[in-house]
Formats: sequence, structure tokens, C-alpha cells
Amino acid sequence: MPNREIRIVGIPGLREIVPGDDLGDLILEATRNAVIRAGDGDVFVVAQKIVSKAEGRIIKLDGIEPSPLARSWAEAYDKDPRIVEAKIRESRRIVRMDRGILIVETGHGYICANAGVDASNVPDGHVTLLPEAPDESAHKLRERLQATLNARLGVIISDTFGRPWREGVVNVALGVAGINPLVDYRGRPDSHGRPMQFTVVAVADELASAAELVMGKTLGVPVAVIQGLDGGSGPGTGKDLIRPAEMDLFR
Amino acid sequence: MPNREIRIVGIPGLREIVPGDDLGDLILEATRNAVIRAGDGDVFVVAQKIVSKAEGRIIKLDGIEPSPLARSWAEAYDKDPRIVEAKIRESRRIVRMDRGILIVETGHGYICANAGVDASNVPDGHVTLLPEAPDESAHKLRERLQATLNARLGVIISDTFGRPWREGVVNVALGVAGINPLVDYRGRPDSHGRPMQFTVVAVADELASAAELVMGKTLGVPVAVIQGLDGGSGPGTGKDLIRPAEMDLFR
Repeated sequence: MPNREIRIVGIPGLREIVPGDDLGDLILEATRNAVIRAGDGDVFVVAQKIVSKAEGRIIKLDGIEPSPLARSWAEAYDKDPRIVEAKIRESRRIVRMDRGILIVETGHGYICANAGVDASNVPDGHVTLLPEAPDESAHKLRERLQATLNARLGVIISDTFGRPWREGVVNVALGVAGINPLVDYRGRPDSHGRPMQFTVVAVADELASAAELVMGKTLGVPVAVIQGLDGGSGPGTGKDLIRPAEMDLFR
Repeated sequence: MPNREIRIVGIPGLREIVPGDDLGDLILEATRNAVIRAGDGDVFVVAQKIVSKAEGRIIKLDGIEPSPLARSWAEAYDKDPRIVEAKIRESRRIVRMDRGILIVETGHGYICANAGVDASNVPDGHVTLLPEAPDESAHKLRERLQATLNARLGVIISDTFGRPWREGVVNVALGVAGINPLVDYRGRPDSHGRPMQFTVVAVADELASAAELVMGKTLGVPVAVIQGLDGGSGPGTGKDLIRPAEMDLFR
């Protein structure tokens, strides 16, 4: 049996992204400059932050009028009331609001802290919002990259999410194109020949986490390519990774 | 700026592990056979299942007398009452018990489904329990691997956990030795020169997830080595990844 090996390569050299940028073009340029040859099955992982910027999902705080709820929460926990208001506006439900922590369900259905509204790595007085439709963003980016690189590729739009019970954030997949986000082992024989019963692995989230290891938060490496996989042809979307409310014990 | 690149290599060829096996020895042999050269900074990720087996954390179901609670739960959801009993005995608190799903806090403090009790990849009529002290298991394994390979190494004992809100399981780090499980970006300048405020990344969990991509569930590859990192010298333990109860909004 051969070793199974994958490589995760950070793609540096992207300039600051601004609304209207052709992100696919810039990623292709950076990939060329880094002398990375992407081929069939490779998966590009792209940080949500630059997708949001390219799509104009960045807003000025100046124009935001905080609601009374946003004001009182901001005052209790020493936060900017306009940023709190932006978070509330991005939410369709508040899951927890306690001890300064705001966990919500976004319009897309993601459950995460602060509705994905983020003031880091953006110009002063601005915040980014999550892309409106991360699966569509992934799909479009994939089409663009595939056309130029002439290869079957996967694309993941990733973001860092916290989680209950465990410290620290990890990268997860928001938008997915060209890969199976969930690999279902149920029914396959285990090492003792009996069928596996419960194991569905969230491979897209694991790929996003793996990519974070070369991206970092402050490294200016918002794109990574994962090579040695059999990606590029699976169906499925990032929405498949969201557990339906009726199956969730922690909403 | 050079590309930052990591490689994740699955180490195949380990035979079935049984209680009393010298796991370090067997991993070293498999690493040699796979012609993998491990060096300073590399991180070995080892599936909990084989650590449990080597440490004798595998029990026969035959001797287990189910409690009334285990019996009624097993009957309601068509489960083996002895396995349910094993799960309850490994728990110090039940977090959720609903719709056939059992989420508990284990004796170590992990919050996970089924207390880590698992019947897959074990001989019929047996289940494995989590290692008694995964951080110690990681520490001992690290000492053993370092002594022979003459390199600074990290070791992670990994298991697959589900999580609220998202479908599928991902690999996380139970036991950690020789690496910083959490990387704290707070205070470091972001790409716009302002200090990052909230980001602590659970790197050990991301490494565990990355390793799962070459390990799989049925591939018979329970060990992977991650190369190109700066591991092998960080302090910290797997316990650092467990959020203290008083900071957790979802217990």
C-alpha cells in the first residue's frame, strides 16, 4: 500500500482586496507568482474575509443607527454599539446572548459568534459581513479557476468559528463547490469486517481546518491549495454542513 | 516570502493492536517501513483507538450488568443495553439524553457523544473506552519516538467528535505533547496594523482534523505525521482545549 500523502500550500502575495476586485483573477496571478501548479483534484481554500471584500460585503460603521438592544448590550460589555447593531441585523435568531458573548443564527443558517461580522483585517471604521451566498461564491470562483487552470478543482470558502465545549476557534467551510463536504462511511466494513454505523465525516470542515495551518490570522495568506486529494468532482454544498434545527439538541 | 507548506503523510502497515503492545515500537517500525523520515518539528497524530487498545482500554460486553436507566434507554432506541451501560459508567455528567443521542461529560472532562465508548474496529462483543489519561499517553509516546528518532516531535492522540449545529464528525485532539494546542493571536497586529482582539486558534484540533484526511475511518491508517511545522517544543496539554464549565454557554 502506498503512503497516502497530501500537501497544503499557502498562496502568499495577494494585495489588499477591495470591492469589485476580480478575486479569481487575483488568486490565479498569485498562484502563478508562487510557482504553484494546481491540477485535477486540488482544493482551493479561500478565506471568507477576502471574498466578502471583493463582493462589497464591507460596511461603514458611520451610517449605522444602533437599536436600544444594541446600545444596552454594547454599554454592558464595553463594545461599539454600531458593530453590535450590525451583528443583530445579520441575524435571524439569537441563540445565546450572555456574558458579552453573542451566538446567533445568520440569515444563511450558520450558527456562529457575532453573525460573522468582523472588524479585524479591515480598514478603520469598517466591518465585513459574511458573503450573501457562500456556496454561490465558491461555485463562481471554481468556474473561474477551472477555466484557466484547465483542471477539475474544489473550492471552499472558509471562516473561523468557535464551538461549544472546546477552547479556541477552528476553520470551517461556509461555501463549498466541487467536493463532497460529508463523506459517509456508514455501511462500509470496518477493520473487523462489520459495517460502520454512525460515521459521517465533515471532510470540508477538516480541509478548511487543515488550510488554516498555513494561512494563519495575520500572515497575509488568505488562500491555500490542498494537493493530493481526489477533490474536484463531488456534489454537495456548504449548506449540507448545517445541521437541521429539528436534529440539533443545542439550539 | 517563501510558500509555507506542510505535508501530511499517512503511516500504513500497523498490525491489529492488542493490550500490552508497545505502541511506540510498532509506530517506529511502521514509519521505517514506509520510508518516512521524521525530523525536528514534526507532529505525529495517533488515533485514540489504537492507544486505547494498547493500554488495555477494551472491555468485554459479557460481564456488564446494565442498570435500569441503561435498559430503558436501550429499549427505547434499539441499542445494546450493555454498551449503553458502558457509556454511562464512563460519564461524570449527562449533558443531553434525547432522541437516541447521548452527550456526556467524561471523567476527563471531554464533552462528547457516547463518552467515547466505541464498538467499531474492535473484535465482536467488545468496546473500547478512551485512554485514562490521553495527555500522559501522548507524553509517553513522544518520549519514545523522540529517543529513537533523535528529533523534537509533537504528539497528538486524536478522536472523532461530533459538534452542535454542524453535520458530521471531525477529528479533535484529546491528548497533546510537545506542541502549543492553542495559538494566541491576541495583540498581534492584523493586516491593517491594529491589534487582533479575540482570536485564539485551536491548532491542535486543526492538526488532528488535517491528519484525519489521510487516516480515514476504514483505511487501516491510524497514524499520520505532519511535516513542515514548527512543532515539537511547545508547552501545553490536551486539557487546555477543554473550555471551563463557567465559560461555556452550552452545558
